[in-house]
Amino acid sequence: MSPRHLLIVAHGSRRLASNEEVRRLAERVRDLRSPGIDHVESAFLELAEPDIPAGLDRCVALGAREIVLFPYFLAVGTHVAEDIPEAVAAFRARHPDVAVRVTGHLGASEALPRAILEVAATQEPVRGV
Amino acid sequence: MSPRHLLIVAHGSRRLASNEEVRRLAERVRDLRSPGIDHVESAFLELAEPDIPAGLDRCVALGAREIVLFPYFLAVGTHVAEDIPEAVAAFRARHPDVAVRVTGHLGASEALPRAILEVAATQEPVRGV
Repeated sequence: MSPRHLLIVAHGSRRLASNEEVRRLAERVRDLRSPGIDHVESAFLELAEPDIPAGLDRCVALGAREIVLFPYFLAVGTHVAEDIPEAVAAFRARHPDVAVRVTGHLGASEALPRAILEVAATQEPVRGV
Repeated sequence: MSPRHLLIVAHGSRRLASNEEVRRLAERVRDLRSPGIDHVESAFLELAEPDIPAGLDRCVALGAREIVLFPYFLAVGTHVAEDIPEAVAAFRARHPDVAVRVTGHLGASEALPRAILEVAATQEPVRGV
């Protein structure tokens, strides 16, 4: 199978720490070493680097032949519905040889409700302190 | 064990559809019927109803004796670090008999990297269309 990369696309923030959280998240996903994903990168719609075109290009430079773009957004808005598809369309025009798929956004994912219950359940018992 | 409720707290948006996504997420979590959680509600920091005090009070009105508050935020910012703890402190002053625990926010959760890989892996093969 040709090298498949996961690109986690976040909104981007003026708070450097928020962008750093996204980059660390990409590292945490990478560390899981999923057999179906050869590499994990992050990119930002605005306010942080790399932007989406640069993030996609970086995947290609690192050898990706397939890219799964994951919109790290809680809700569908203009960003998810329009901005990301536009950036992907522009990328495809530049790289017709690289396959790109955009997944559903985080807020709609099937995996999210269980993940939330895991957070709620796995920590110490409820206390009033 | 006394009734334990999960309160999913989101930022809130001017877009009604985004708030509706949060409410539906709470329903999806509720539908999983976790043995450790008796009920699931949602609340909003601003821009939507119920706000956090109203959401906590609603849990109490529905019978909660323990509340797990899950910050549905991608990053730690003032909202997670200050606004939510302040609202919880005010609630505790009003309801010293109800235990409240605030979990880590979504973006930092241990469950998130695996959930992202699940989204990336479980959908159809990557295609350039």
